[in-house]
Amino acid sequence: MQKENTNLVSREPELHAWTMRMALREAQTAFEQGEVPVGAIIMHHGELIAKAHNQTELLKDPTAHAEMLAITQATSALGDWRLQDCTLYVTKEPCPMCAGAIILARLPLVVWGVDDPKRGGASSVFNILQHPQLNHRSEIIRGVLEDESRILLQRFFRERRNQQTER
Amino acid sequence: MQKENTNLVSREPELHAWTMRMALREAQTAFEQGEVPVGAIIMHHGELIAKAHNQTELLKDPTAHAEMLAITQATSALGDWRLQDCTLYVTKEPCPMCAGAIILARLPLVVWGVDDPKRGGASSVFNILQHPQLNHRSEIIRGVLEDESRILLQRFFRERRNQQTER
Repeated sequence: MQKENTNLVSREPELHAWTMRMALREAQTAFEQGEVPVGAIIMHHGELIAKAHNQTELLKDPTAHAEMLAITQATSALGDWRLQDCTLYVTKEPCPMCAGAIILARLPLVVWGVDDPKRGGASSVFNILQHPQLNHRSEIIRGVLEDESRILLQRFFRERRNQQTER
Repeated sequence: MQKENTNLVSREPELHAWTMRMALREAQTAFEQGEVPVGAIIMHHGELIAKAHNQTELLKDPTAHAEMLAITQATSALGDWRLQDCTLYVTKEPCPMCAGAIILARLPLVVWGVDDPKRGGASSVFNILQHPQLNHRSEIIRGVLEDESRILLQRFFRERRNQQTER
């Protein structure tokens, strides 16, 4: 039993990276559609129940962030607005809106790739995910496939700047 | 000309109260449907472009707050994710999620009824609407029909407590 648990724990970083790889594929899809490349995945007891990418441009809706779409999908899949026993994987630190939604959905664990020092609502600018006054706190793991997430975002914004210069 | 402007300014509190009355009717609808009674209205150049009430229970979706639904409606009505020249009226101070969405939608003015000292994301707990580091700041007016909004919320939670005691 002891050995089995140790194996599970030692496999966890691999599992997080494996799941984040799916979130990165969602971010890549966003990139190809001209959307800021951010992807999100929600797992429930090892089962995929939501995957989404940023769709703010397509839907002309500033609330259509990957995390928001994934949370709505997941609550629909479970038939419950409480996402207990779920883990959200997202390629970039959630913004204040998404961090607020994560708390409302009672998500126990949030894993992200790259920090957002300018607008991050999870820990960088606002500490929404672990604020003592709110009625829920999420555990966080940051920096999973951080380089891949950052490079994709940098490439997106560089290409957009170049296109704007060419016009 | 001078006189006309003065009249407009002096009518503003009445206009805010008149519009908030519509938001309160939305909150009342939420109440009747067993939802936490919060209502929201978005006006664009004096025209109503969105009205919504909290639907988290009906949709089993923690993101279905009145403000979120109203923002999505308004961006759909205008065909633009930027809600410039719009005013959001909401019966209760926005939570962190909704305050984050307001900033993303670039709403220039937010008017609300009653403060939420426990979880308010607009000014009470987090200063999301006027944070110097974010790329947009909204003007705020608070306390419009405050008593009516508070009384409706208090009645809702008192009745819910009573129902739970009876079970």
